[in-house]
Amino acid sequence: MQTAEKIQLLEDGHITDAKGFIAGGIHCGIRKTKLDFGWIHSEVPAAAAGVYTVNAFQAAPVQITKNTIEKSGTIQTVIVNSGNANSCTGERGMKDAMEMQRLAAEKMQVPVQYVAVASTGVIGDFLPMDKIRFGISQMDENDKAHHFEQAILTTDTVTKHAAVKVEIDGKMIAIGGAAKGSGMIHPNMATMLGFIATDACVEQESLQLALRQLTDSTFNMISVDGDSSTNDMVLLLANGMKKNNPLHPGHPDWQLFLQGLETVMAELAKKIARDGEGATKLIEVHVTGASNKRAANQVAKAIISSNLVKTAVYGKDPNWGRIVCAIGYSGETFDLNKIHVALGDHIIFQNGLGTATEEKILKDYLEEDTVKIYVDLQNGSEKTVAWGCDLTYEYININASYRT
Amino acid sequence: MQTAEKIQLLEDGHITDAKGFIAGGIHCGIRKTKLDFGWIHSEVPAAAAGVYTVNAFQAAPVQITKNTIEKSGTIQTVIVNSGNANSCTGERGMKDAMEMQRLAAEKMQVPVQYVAVASTGVIGDFLPMDKIRFGISQMDENDKAHHFEQAILTTDTVTKHAAVKVEIDGKMIAIGGAAKGSGMIHPNMATMLGFIATDACVEQESLQLALRQLTDSTFNMISVDGDSSTNDMVLLLANGMKKNNPLHPGHPDWQLFLQGLETVMAELAKKIARDGEGATKLIEVHVTGASNKRAANQVAKAIISSNLVKTAVYGKDPNWGRIVCAIGYSGETFDLNKIHVALGDHIIFQNGLGTATEEKILKDYLEEDTVKIYVDLQNGSEKTVAWGCDLTYEYININASYRT
Repeated sequence: MQTAEKIQLLEDGHITDAKGFIAGGIHCGIRKTKLDFGWIHSEVPAAAAGVYTVNAFQAAPVQITKNTIEKSGTIQTVIVNSGNANSCTGERGMKDAMEMQRLAAEKMQVPVQYVAVASTGVIGDFLPMDKIRFGISQMDENDKAHHFEQAILTTDTVTKHAAVKVEIDGKMIAIGGAAKGSGMIHPNMATMLGFIATDACVEQESLQLALRQLTDSTFNMISVDGDSSTNDMVLLLANGMKKNNPLHPGHPDWQLFLQGLETVMAELAKKIARDGEGATKLIEVHVTGASNKRAANQVAKAIISSNLVKTAVYGKDPNWGRIVCAIGYSGETFDLNKIHVALGDHIIFQNGLGTATEEKILKDYLEEDTVKIYVDLQNGSEKTVAWGCDLTYEYININASYRT
Repeated sequence: MQTAEKIQLLEDGHITDAKGFIAGGIHCGIRKTKLDFGWIHSEVPAAAAGVYTVNAFQAAPVQITKNTIEKSGTIQTVIVNSGNANSCTGERGMKDAMEMQRLAAEKMQVPVQYVAVASTGVIGDFLPMDKIRFGISQMDENDKAHHFEQAILTTDTVTKHAAVKVEIDGKMIAIGGAAKGSGMIHPNMATMLGFIATDACVEQESLQLALRQLTDSTFNMISVDGDSSTNDMVLLLANGMKKNNPLHPGHPDWQLFLQGLETVMAELAKKIARDGEGATKLIEVHVTGASNKRAANQVAKAIISSNLVKTAVYGKDPNWGRIVCAIGYSGETFDLNKIHVALGDHIIFQNGLGTATEEKILKDYLEEDTVKIYVDLQNGSEKTVAWGCDLTYEYININASYRT
């Protein structure tokens, strides 16, 4: 990243750092007391891109939003409710999602095909439409992004937001985002919602290309518990208010734009992993020396998804055997004698054997808030990073009694 | 199974119900106080078959035993230690496993190529060979199978054993087995050891065929935590002491033999799943109406492996949304509106919607020791069964502090 210094990560960045975007959120009554209805709105129609869950059963709002963006390529208003996923709700669920879309269009005076809808929460209950209608009636252009960030949460304990500024065509453009996701998160995005906005002008097809490509290296590299939900989506809106020459892969600053966008998406991904249900730590797995990208990803995901690695990190047990074992069942073939494994700066496995690193030093390292596991396969030049969290008593507590 | 009445499951069956097999176990000092060294021995050399972990890093004893059986096709003595997996131990580990094999051959006065070795426990420590040598010196032909069953355990809380009698060629032959496995268990057998013996006469190639085929429908359909170990193996020995005509796929009683063998293997598989680390319940997932076997297995495994389904069962939360969601991310394509899901006798999902079954009735059902989830995909005629367990606080407790 030679150009990385041209990307400025804001200390307290929000989706509304992108010019012309407003956002807000309120309590409409689906959840007991927490905010549960949020919105994003752009002054002008924005080019829009989306990526959606690969679960075979896509919830109604996912189907509606996907169809809308495929047809119009443009979004001006996004509404989101938490507390109810409107998933596995049949025809009535589809009607409800369409009504949400129509009412928001009327309220914000935009065409219905410029409205995206998203829902997250319990699967299988019908939306309480009276509450949703009330929420839509309260949409307010003077509200703040931090209310939106709260309104989209479910079991999350903190809001997730980030923004960067990047110089494009001599103009400082902004890219900001907000996300939610805590449990039921896995490669291929599950019960994860992400909303990213930029005031740059980007060609719609290029926007979709960028989002798809960078989702693979960011949101698709998180794992909390291996479950993939029916409701995930990430939307990316570009309203062009900075009036740069339209960005596309042939634009001289395209790579810079991609790097800025990846920075925001990776920040949000890390924040989601760190706030995994019951998590006390962020785990980062860095795999290098892979013969191909797929092998690198398989190894990183096997480690980050291993319940045994996750409980060992929670227990501050530097049990490298579990890491090596996960590499072994990742589905790829390797020479065990070439593999190096390190915990932070401490090499713990090489030449097919554990090293003599003192257990006390490793236990101390596992006290850190972020635990980094490095694996060098010494088998090529591909690399990857995956993010996850430890598995704790609190995960069980949250999920054994989610609905009660 | 028209012939099922010809198979008699013994009330308290052991591997030594097969004529000519003895078994035993002692404390040799690897573990603090629990038995940690066991053996099986046949009066006469037995045809042998084995299936082994698919983890890319096979532990030394797995490599030695696999090579031995591939060459000789015959085993007379099996020794097993717990407390140390002899895995990721490089050349020294290989030498240690070979020494175990050689010393056991000397002690029992059999050829070295008739000895199988197995280890289970912590990965990455060298075997304490002085203790192993002591264990071998104590091998005793007058010991009992229940000591063997104890000696092979790690975090297991109960021994696992089963036996059947089957009439073959007018003779009552026996098939008995013992197994261990508690955590780190997943499709494709992980940290799972299984030992099965029969006094029937079976052609060696047919024995291997039977073991391979039935492992797929029994041990490979268990999941405890999704981790696959470096040390799994299942061995099947047939010593022919009942002097039936050699069994092979052309023998009129071949199917009956397979059914008897599958009964023993499925009993052991269920016992392993029920004793999953921290488990309070056995979960059985029955999938019917699949278009092909692969789809049936994918759906069953997605449900049985879902941390969210497992915690919901633990929390007695009849959250069918998590089951439907797991079906959705299993990787297959279905029509949601055709799928039926039932908890025990209670249909909880059909026509794309949850049913009105009273929550109280479902919660009561979830109090049972065995929870059965039925999924009918209504998409064909293939079916399968998978076994697993709930995910509990105790799983975290065991695995956050396994070594300390």
